[in-house]
Amino acid sequence: MKLWEQYAPELITDLYELTMAESYLREGMRGEATFSLFIRSYPADRSYFVSAGLDDLLQVLPDFRFSNESLRYLSSLGKFSSEFIEYLRHFRFTGSIRAIPEGRTFFIQEPILEVTAPIIEAQVIETLVINVIHVETMLASKAARVYGAASGKGLIDFGMRRAHGVDASVKAARSSYLAGFLGTSNLLAGKIYKIPVFGTMAHSYVASFSSELDSFHAFARAFPDNTVLLIDTYDTIAGAFKAVEVAKAMRERGNKLVGVRLDSGDLGNLSRKVRLILNDAGFPDVKIMASGNLDEYQVENLVKGGSEIDFFAVGTRMAVSADAPCLDIAYKLVEYEGRPILKLSIGKKSWIGKKQVCRFYGADGKMDFDRVCLLDSGRCDGEPLMELVMKEGRQARAPESLTEIRARFLDDWRKLPEQLKEIHPSQVYPVEVCESLRELDGEIAMLKRREEVEELEKCLIAKS
Amino acid sequence: MKLWEQYAPELITDLYELTMAESYLREGMRGEATFSLFIRSYPADRSYFVSAGLDDLLQVLPDFRFSNESLRYLSSLGKFSSEFIEYLRHFRFTGSIRAIPEGRTFFIQEPILEVTAPIIEAQVIETLVINVIHVETMLASKAARVYGAASGKGLIDFGMRRAHGVDASVKAARSSYLAGFLGTSNLLAGKIYKIPVFGTMAHSYVASFSSELDSFHAFARAFPDNTVLLIDTYDTIAGAFKAVEVAKAMRERGNKLVGVRLDSGDLGNLSRKVRLILNDAGFPDVKIMASGNLDEYQVENLVKGGSEIDFFAVGTRMAVSADAPCLDIAYKLVEYEGRPILKLSIGKKSWIGKKQVCRFYGADGKMDFDRVCLLDSGRCDGEPLMELVMKEGRQARAPESLTEIRARFLDDWRKLPEQLKEIHPSQVYPVEVCESLRELDGEIAMLKRREEVEELEKCLIAKS
Repeated sequence: MKLWEQYAPELITDLYELTMAESYLREGMRGEATFSLFIRSYPADRSYFVSAGLDDLLQVLPDFRFSNESLRYLSSLGKFSSEFIEYLRHFRFTGSIRAIPEGRTFFIQEPILEVTAPIIEAQVIETLVINVIHVETMLASKAARVYGAASGKGLIDFGMRRAHGVDASVKAARSSYLAGFLGTSNLLAGKIYKIPVFGTMAHSYVASFSSELDSFHAFARAFPDNTVLLIDTYDTIAGAFKAVEVAKAMRERGNKLVGVRLDSGDLGNLSRKVRLILNDAGFPDVKIMASGNLDEYQVENLVKGGSEIDFFAVGTRMAVSADAPCLDIAYKLVEYEGRPILKLSIGKKSWIGKKQVCRFYGADGKMDFDRVCLLDSGRCDGEPLMELVMKEGRQARAPESLTEIRARFLDDWRKLPEQLKEIHPSQVYPVEVCESLRELDGEIAMLKRREEVEELEKCLIAKS
Repeated sequence: MKLWEQYAPELITDLYELTMAESYLREGMRGEATFSLFIRSYPADRSYFVSAGLDDLLQVLPDFRFSNESLRYLSSLGKFSSEFIEYLRHFRFTGSIRAIPEGRTFFIQEPILEVTAPIIEAQVIETLVINVIHVETMLASKAARVYGAASGKGLIDFGMRRAHGVDASVKAARSSYLAGFLGTSNLLAGKIYKIPVFGTMAHSYVASFSSELDSFHAFARAFPDNTVLLIDTYDTIAGAFKAVEVAKAMRERGNKLVGVRLDSGDLGNLSRKVRLILNDAGFPDVKIMASGNLDEYQVENLVKGGSEIDFFAVGTRMAVSADAPCLDIAYKLVEYEGRPILKLSIGKKSWIGKKQVCRFYGADGKMDFDRVCLLDSGRCDGEPLMELVMKEGRQARAPESLTEIRARFLDDWRKLPEQLKEIHPSQVYPVEVCESLRELDGEIAMLKRREEVEELEKCLIAKS
């Protein structure tokens, strides 16, 4: 059976979510909780994130149910009471979600989303929420860096084969399109998300013919309007001369060669030589595409180094976010039954309470700073980033198209300070924490520490 | 709609696989091709790989069909002829696959699998083959390093939340179980692959109660046989004293506290203090589990540094293979219509022809060296690693259980030279290439270069 035919969102869950849920149920803890999802720190060379993945989550939650098959599996573990299994049989997600819409830039310590629901419900969806938002936000943030490095040159996602599974490959295509790419080679993503699809040919194609020139002619015959020739199977320069032959033959038939692709060697140097060969032969409109282990670092070098590359096909290193394949993302309980919640674990700071992120712009229209405030304070003089996207378990607004989300990214991109767009960013964007939030947080921490000492003393006295 | 309800294996494909296929069809190229899947180089600190992912592939290929919905999508692109769409409607994979079985250690330049089929079929499945084998082999190879570093301590996969999507999370659980882990927190993987599931509690659970001690007691009441307390929400040492209180209460009820979990701070130092507290109170059997950004490097430090940790829960860094999130894996045409195929692209060496990997052992039973030979040569004096796993589009042997595969890994692990198991390996395993393969490969390269020069000269003469 195909792996994904066995997927069930209710089992996209760490076991402990359900053991905790059973204990909450036993203890009669049905109070309202708020969990906050945020990123604690920047990976190296990161200075912003691009929010993505929300749509996936909003599509899954309204239908979130425990199927009979899943319940049978959970029963079979011998860990859960029959009362709890019965509870799960009727489980629905009835909560609210406020979130930063997809395609927006945001920063560390800012809530990407906050879930408010009866504590069991908010707990049970934890793993799903993190898994869905983490990977797409990571990939969109990586793709945005490539978009910046390309300085307007065309970008295409070629990452399907080495993405971490099918799910990741589809999400890499969506995230990169969202972040300014022109399209993808990924047919499944093309179909699901209506993303434009692109492709050329592989070395195997060229090598399967008895000569490279024969392979080029054959492809041009099959795709008279849509031929990009891969010219490095044997020798890139020789390949360029052969491409000229094909371009001439196509011109005689009233067609045009779209482009050539370089996939190995010194891409900058080769692109200049190939450009000269093509221009010299009267084909200045034939585009040059480059691929082969590209990422934002190499794309920037090639663009700044004066290459003659018109399109970059960016694959593996973007699709796995190779230099930062995970984000320090956390989903933390910040309020329960109206009580602000704080943990004190070393190096794992989170901010109490329901919050809002307020953005402030300079006179030049560029982002100036953000401020994280308590939602209840009602004071957000700037632009509030978080919106109500789910209410009582249903989507609180119409689903957004990927085109809208992409436009939102491009709009935010124009407003992002240039220093933050650098590949090795020279600035950190200021994220303030409201005075009132900071004060309350400090009070809760003091109180919690005092309670801790008292409880510990009791244990030690009991012990002696 | 849920993302994975739209998955269709026939679209787990880069566009170019299908444009090439259309051209092959037009040209009447229906000859038999062999493609070889192999890894070109080791990432830093890697000295072996563990094969994984084959079962997934073998389950998908026999039913590989283009659905009407997929065909409608492909037609809608306006890139394909109606003849080709009709061809795809009847497409079946009818080829053979020889592969190294799952769970075996293997090395660079060795074929993991070879597909022999009519060229269109072998080409169309390229992206699927790479995607499925790459991620599991990468994850199993990472997990094996953690297994080695743990020196017999128990290991559990906690990586679900930050794996790259659902697919990746399930594969991380499978791959790590295959490579010696005891189980996973991932319920979906637990169900699909019958992997033992483990879990404790989260900081949110502890924080939702008005006191940590109350939360511990509540959990122990719910799970009298299965309680592991997370003791670092406020202060690990205080948490340990509270765990002792709970352990006493459980003992009075005739139950046993299974363990405590540390998730932050100096895990080695804290584990020793917590061990003393537990022992001092008469609970030497209560286990200590550690988690929190662990990988093989940290696990090794903790084990060698004399920590008192019994179980390691390893999450994100393993599930994304953080230090090597992709492998330089390639699927190359090596033979077409009986003709050996070679490409000459710079830095992308592949070996011609259908091959076999032969393994030789020393007198001590440890692996000594491997030799890659032409299959036709029929000479493999050592242990042949590749087996026929698919014939004429059907599985050529019974599907293997994960338990069998895990046993195979553990067997190979015992035979792997100790120097290769080091976290920073000090040796490279010798992989020889048979003289006959090397000679033929050289001849083909010479021939291909000569043909190249001749073809180029013709183009240049035509040009002038």
